[in-house]
Amino acid sequence: MKALIERIQNEGKYLGNGILKVDGFLNHQLHPELTMAMGREFCKRLSQAGVAHTTKIITAETSGIAPALAAAVAFDVPLVFARKKRPITMPDGFFEAEAPSHTKGGVTTLMISPEYLSAEDRVVIIDDFLASGKTTDALIRAVGQSGAEVLGVGAVIEKAFEEGRRRLETYGVPIVSLAVIERMDEHGIHVR
Amino acid sequence: MKALIERIQNEGKYLGNGILKVDGFLNHQLHPELTMAMGREFCKRLSQAGVAHTTKIITAETSGIAPALAAAVAFDVPLVFARKKRPITMPDGFFEAEAPSHTKGGVTTLMISPEYLSAEDRVVIIDDFLASGKTTDALIRAVGQSGAEVLGVGAVIEKAFEEGRRRLETYGVPIVSLAVIERMDEHGIHVR
Repeated sequence: MKALIERIQNEGKYLGNGILKVDGFLNHQLHPELTMAMGREFCKRLSQAGVAHTTKIITAETSGIAPALAAAVAFDVPLVFARKKRPITMPDGFFEAEAPSHTKGGVTTLMISPEYLSAEDRVVIIDDFLASGKTTDALIRAVGQSGAEVLGVGAVIEKAFEEGRRRLETYGVPIVSLAVIERMDEHGIHVR
Repeated sequence: MKALIERIQNEGKYLGNGILKVDGFLNHQLHPELTMAMGREFCKRLSQAGVAHTTKIITAETSGIAPALAAAVAFDVPLVFARKKRPITMPDGFFEAEAPSHTKGGVTTLMISPEYLSAEDRVVIIDDFLASGKTTDALIRAVGQSGAEVLGVGAVIEKAFEEGRRRLETYGVPIVSLAVIERMDEHGIHVR
């Protein structure tokens, strides 16, 4: 996705330790036109890959919400964002799976209420990053508990040098990323 | 806002202790058409109230992000969502203010990077609820540290029986809410 790749080239910063800073357009600030275009691009590419009759977009809070809402607009289906803390409004019997925490080094539990996901659903999973793939894997496992079918996965930015795609390929569904970081180092960010 | 008021009447649940459950269309699941309409309604009502030349939408993660993105689309300006945990990508000198935590009973610090907010900015603050007003108040104080001007405040749902509006009126800016809960009890939810 050209506009996104250009943003990464112009504004992305490699901070070392495999950390790509894209706070200016993904993790802290959002540009509405770029964000909504991500949703249309997910819809186009996943449809081309054979995804059809989607009934629900699933993501994880926090940074997944914006691109997932954009995808929900493009697919014209509801979005459910998995919670990391159980709200007092969430009933028992929720679907849950563990993923490594980005902030604390521990594990985060992703929770989805059975009120908003059922065996009849056909799900597209959207997230901001595909790196280790562990967060997406947890979302797929949580969705699986509902009996819903996962049709495809979309990530805004994929780090091709991590094992995420290989991990998720075992599910046998299309995996689409809007920009792929081939490598990054002190000399620059190589993105396609 | 009629579509929102109808959703609250049909799907909102009063759980006691002042808790209104609207997970089905605000805090866990989102309907893209309703969400994007919220953004247009914020823009229309705040413009009617005299808000002009807005340069930035500010909200707090998590449930503020979706309605704030919708507002950012309608206003056609960037959105910044305040973080509750400092990401390793956030530089020193960030703007911050404390608000009571909804989940833990303690306090949450809302943080905004100085990279994405400056004294030249003209800000509209958007959040999911206006109840005690303490989260919005913290956002206004954090924005104030940047020197940016707060032009107005928008909340998806206002609880008129809490003190939020009175607290925020001291700032002298328009406060718009898309649905107002007059009262709620075991007999029902009274919303206008």
